Amino acid sequence: MRLSDIGEFGLIRRFSPPFLRNLPAGVVGIGDDCAVLPWKGNAHLLVTTDMLIEDIHFIRVKAAPRDLGYKSLAVNLSDIAAMGGTPRSAFLSIGVPSDINVEWLDEFFRGIEGLARAENVRLLGGDTTKSPGPLVINIGVLGGVHPARVKYRSGAKPGNIISVTGFLGDSGAGLRVLIENRPLKGDEKYLVRQHHRPRAHLAEGAWLAAKEGVTAMMDVSDGIDSDLRRIMERSGCGASVDLEDLPLSAPLKRAAIKYGWNPFETAASGGEDYCLLAIVRPDRFGKIAAAFGRKFGRPLSKIGVITRVHEGLKYRLGGKPVTLKRHGFDHFG
Amino acid sequence: MRLSDIGEFGLIRRFSPPFLRNLPAGVVGIGDDCAVLPWKGNAHLLVTTDMLIEDIHFIRVKAAPRDLGYKSLAVNLSDIAAMGGTPRSAFLSIGVPSDINVEWLDEFFRGIEGLARAENVRLLGGDTTKSPGPLVINIGVLGGVHPARVKYRSGAKPGNIISVTGFLGDSGAGLRVLIENRPLKGDEKYLVRQHHRPRAHLAEGAWLAAKEGVTAMMDVSDGIDSDLRRIMERSGCGASVDLEDLPLSAPLKRAAIKYGWNPFETAASGGEDYCLLAIVRPDRFGKIAAAFGRKFGRPLSKIGVITRVHEGLKYRLGGKPVTLKRHGFDHFG
Repeated sequence: MRLSDIGEFGLIRRFSPPFLRNLPAGVVGIGDDCAVLPWKGNAHLLVTTDMLIEDIHFIRVKAAPRDLGYKSLAVNLSDIAAMGGTPRSAFLSIGVPSDINVEWLDEFFRGIEGLARAENVRLLGGDTTKSPGPLVINIGVLGGVHPARVKYRSGAKPGNIISVTGFLGDSGAGLRVLIENRPLKGDEKYLVRQHHRPRAHLAEGAWLAAKEGVTAMMDVSDGIDSDLRRIMERSGCGASVDLEDLPLSAPLKRAAIKYGWNPFETAASGGEDYCLLAIVRPDRFGKIAAAFGRKFGRPLSKIGVITRVHEGLKYRLGGKPVTLKRHGFDHFG
Repeated sequence: MRLSDIGEFGLIRRFSPPFLRNLPAGVVGIGDDCAVLPWKGNAHLLVTTDMLIEDIHFIRVKAAPRDLGYKSLAVNLSDIAAMGGTPRSAFLSIGVPSDINVEWLDEFFRGIEGLARAENVRLLGGDTTKSPGPLVINIGVLGGVHPARVKYRSGAKPGNIISVTGFLGDSGAGLRVLIENRPLKGDEKYLVRQHHRPRAHLAEGAWLAAKEGVTAMMDVSDGIDSDLRRIMERSGCGASVDLEDLPLSAPLKRAAIKYGWNPFETAASGGEDYCLLAIVRPDRFGKIAAAFGRKFGRPLSKIGVITRVHEGLKYRLGGKPVTLKRHGFDHFG
């Protein structure tokens, strides 16, 4: 059987059982943004790991090595943010092809180190090896979270509000700018920068995790079209999204008009935004969103509601049902 | 500057400073088999990660997928063994080329799962992605160790005995059997099996770590010729090895005669034996070696002594200085 027949999530489902067997109380294995292990009395340990492979996750000639280093760490920090945690230490494995030189690696490490220092993350180890083909980067991050505050994908309930902590689609549009070789002017530059230097919403995640009424969290990595399905699976629910409520940046709107892109599809399926999906009880949403706005100077944007499981994932535009042409990212699709 | 100009260990040295800056008390970053983090009062957390890339670390058509899964985990468990620790949980990232099918992955996971179950290690997470080129496997393992028992590479002192917990060279000879396409009869089969299914010396490591007088430990991954240099660097010492004291298995001796291999060079430079190098105070060695023999039914073999730093790494055969032709493995050499 070919992998493309079952897809990335089919593969994960197929190989999940041994990962989930005999877990002690409090331990969470695969199925969430991080694994969770009881640690000290006042802290759970969070563990996440991400593998980035050249020509699958990035195009080397299109990215500055410093940006690539930054992003390789940022995507892992985003997983920690999604659980409401604080990242502590990072481990880097790198497989280096022969056409990469020491100066390239200097810049790559500077990108990792700069972000690590800014977020107070210690680089504690890793592995280096030669690669006969693509550049391969694997980063693992350990973090901590208060046991009472850790947020899972599994807590969403019908009627809960679906919200996001930042713009959607900028990163996907930036990738499209690169692939279509668009000239890098103001808007295009902004979009490419969002693609190359995504910000992990660590402060937002920790703040939301401390709020009663936030029932589930996840980071937006594959695009909400894919990511919401993960929340639906884990929570046993459906979801209804109002496309006109997806928060779009002004540069994305202008680029969409200029190049004839569908901005809603880009926002729902582009992926790699690395803001957070926060699912919130409706009786608490108004207060939390207002406090979020005061705290972060930007809205916690409502984009839809959690529905019952048999409803599946539905999109609406102007109140009417619509279907998306593009779907969220599947590595084996 | 090309990576081959500075080599794997030059690369690690070049990028070490940010990894070693501002570490809190008790935290050990790169430079040992595992990173060490203070954890609970009675346990330090050990973290290790290894990246294996097709055609660099293994030849896919030469290895059964189940063996490859087993070995991918075993090499990480060996790092935990080298610190005297107990492995607890494992995280797998895998980059899968399109010519690998689901049945192959089934077998690969069975290999990981079988060893994980045997050693009571929980598989808690990871990442899956497509690879445009080689199969890429990254495993990270978390373990625990009693703070008073953790063993580092840095404790060796001149006059200490250098010993190993198992045969050297079997794995390197097994690889040579595969590369030279030798017929897989009894001895060859044994050697290839040692190459494909190395045993992490977890029980030996934990036992040795509890013994007063064991001053340093490390696992034999690149071959003692390379691995002893790591201990020398970290401990600020030299080493003198008596080649005739390297413990050789009967199959290795017979294969060396049959194929005209130098068994001492294979034993010193072959790598991937994954037994342990234990450095022991001379006044304690006799008692510890005798107890080791009773406990494990095999010798703790003395292979040389730690010397002063200016002596470097020296080999002797029949008491006379000799030089090795082959050297330990360097991924960028």
